[in-house]
Amino acid sequence: MITVNVELGERAYPIQIGADLIGQTELFAPHIRGASVTIVTNSTVDPLYGNTLRAALAPLGKDVTTVVLPDGEAHKNWETLNLIFDALLGARADRKTTLIALGGGVIGDMTGFAAACYMRGVPFIQVPTTLLSQVDSSVGGKTGINHPLGKNMIGAFYQPQAVIADIGALRTLPARELAAGLAEVIKTGAIADANFFEWIEANVEALNRCEPQALAEAVKRSCEIKASVVAADEREGGLRAILNFGHTFGHAIEAGLGYGEWLHGEAVGCGMVMAADLSVRLGHLDEAARARLVAVIKAAHLPTQAPMLGASRYVDLMRVDKKAEAGEIKFILLKRFGDTLITRAPDDAVVKTLDASVGT
Amino acid sequence: MITVNVELGERAYPIQIGADLIGQTELFAPHIRGASVTIVTNSTVDPLYGNTLRAALAPLGKDVTTVVLPDGEAHKNWETLNLIFDALLGARADRKTTLIALGGGVIGDMTGFAAACYMRGVPFIQVPTTLLSQVDSSVGGKTGINHPLGKNMIGAFYQPQAVIADIGALRTLPARELAAGLAEVIKTGAIADANFFEWIEANVEALNRCEPQALAEAVKRSCEIKASVVAADEREGGLRAILNFGHTFGHAIEAGLGYGEWLHGEAVGCGMVMAADLSVRLGHLDEAARARLVAVIKAAHLPTQAPMLGASRYVDLMRVDKKAEAGEIKFILLKRFGDTLITRAPDDAVVKTLDASVGT
Repeated sequence: MITVNVELGERAYPIQIGADLIGQTELFAPHIRGASVTIVTNSTVDPLYGNTLRAALAPLGKDVTTVVLPDGEAHKNWETLNLIFDALLGARADRKTTLIALGGGVIGDMTGFAAACYMRGVPFIQVPTTLLSQVDSSVGGKTGINHPLGKNMIGAFYQPQAVIADIGALRTLPARELAAGLAEVIKTGAIADANFFEWIEANVEALNRCEPQALAEAVKRSCEIKASVVAADEREGGLRAILNFGHTFGHAIEAGLGYGEWLHGEAVGCGMVMAADLSVRLGHLDEAARARLVAVIKAAHLPTQAPMLGASRYVDLMRVDKKAEAGEIKFILLKRFGDTLITRAPDDAVVKTLDASVGT
Repeated sequence: MITVNVELGERAYPIQIGADLIGQTELFAPHIRGASVTIVTNSTVDPLYGNTLRAALAPLGKDVTTVVLPDGEAHKNWETLNLIFDALLGARADRKTTLIALGGGVIGDMTGFAAACYMRGVPFIQVPTTLLSQVDSSVGGKTGINHPLGKNMIGAFYQPQAVIADIGALRTLPARELAAGLAEVIKTGAIADANFFEWIEANVEALNRCEPQALAEAVKRSCEIKASVVAADEREGGLRAILNFGHTFGHAIEAGLGYGEWLHGEAVGCGMVMAADLSVRLGHLDEAARARLVAVIKAAHLPTQAPMLGASRYVDLMRVDKKAEAGEIKFILLKRFGDTLITRAPDDAVVKTLDASVGT
């Protein structure tokens, strides 16, 4: 087992990475102080890992309840969040009740936001069961839900007590979800670490085959990089924004198609292709680097052609992105592997990128 | 104009107290950095002070929009909160948009919570227009909404940029709302400052008559005391809990009757009578002090007899109070004016207090 520490002063927490961690009582014991625990999971994950987690918690003698939510990004909304509050109040959860998020990014984001808001804040533990949530949404404390007019528009920065990233859980992950997770791994290498990017290029087939050692390394490096960025900028004042590489275009794809049509990671994969196109178009990135990025995104079985929404619809959707300011869209562009810049872009260049990126 | 500073490090903010402050541009100018402002108010307050506030903001050249919510505690729920999010997204509010809460405690709590959650946090300014919100909910950063199973169950600790407490706005306040505000003034003196409690006893008629000097003094002292308690314990780990004197019983009254039937301050007034009864019953407070507290609550035209809900219903409601832990109710009791203790209480004493307190 590997431990990555996220250094955030009094809000610091460990990420434990390894195989078959969900069943290990001793990983949970130090992080649960109150008398009760509420597990929040979904109808896909509960049958796979719910009993393992409940068995791990049993020796701790806590009052354990489970809330099973419907599965999918389409349910990342207030109505579903309220099912968590209903369950907590129904179980008379108090300020020391610990929430455990057992599932992917949607479960993690909603459980974290519920923990942030319930009685103005209760502790929670993340048990991410998808590659995407292990490398991305479990680091950094971003929690929230979608609004019909924008993704993750309502939420909080709220840190977990601990993250238990069980690589073994990825054995049951559909191939499409694995690829979606690789998108964030590729992004992390591209923006922050040229050596890690080269490692991904060399190991993308091993990752596609779900080889445990390659996955553990990918999760560890991604978490380390993201943790160092977040530690430097917890509330996204500046540096942290680089983690949104590929996300400005990606969020527009997700919102434009309707949440849940493309997976978040798929949209980010395609969004990175678009951001790289814009980077080349504005003279920041060379064509060879763009081609390498596109090649590894393709090798990970991610989409590289954007859906046809129309340029004006894309621009409208990007203007309500959280990174936009007074309607000005801020793009995170690549200069070379490991180096980014954040900038506005002329409308005509953006439109050319959109035209060049949509599928035929 | 008087300024009380709430010392919370990087989250410190000033409370400005005085007459006719809503119209003063220079009070708002230093606290609005982005290009746009969204005023959140209700259908009672907007016709009274909306234009004054908009005129004060006009010279700043900001893009100003107004959201008018329905009035009353019964609307302090997710559906109404969502009207704020809809308006913000409709107006393309960004991360630097400032929210201004213009109204009483319900508007302040909902606007603060919306500010805490919108894009994971935007700045907001409180302009409390009721005595209760000037002395209580504008200090301490508690924000939130009600859940059908409990008051303020969903929320956040989130501090405003500034509070502009306009004593002049109290001229239009209904007598019942003024009395509700006095309940928190009385509470503050009772728990924290015997001299201030004596000042209230001597000035309760001037306060009832809405005399500006008496009101300004009451608001100033209440804010100072609450600010010092909150500065010592921002997230209610310990000391801050004393501010809930009268609230354990009070919340049960509000929830039991249905939110909005009694005003919060009325429930707290009666809740203090009940907490004082329990304090005497358990040997912590002498009868003369209890009688003085009841006399000043009566003099402020607050109810001193609790509604008949049945003892078991009261106990059930108090068990889901946020201060309860694993179903154990924690009572804030009075030892003498300026001194409290937090304790569990034997069931039979609680039932006797309930029996003694209900109206006939």
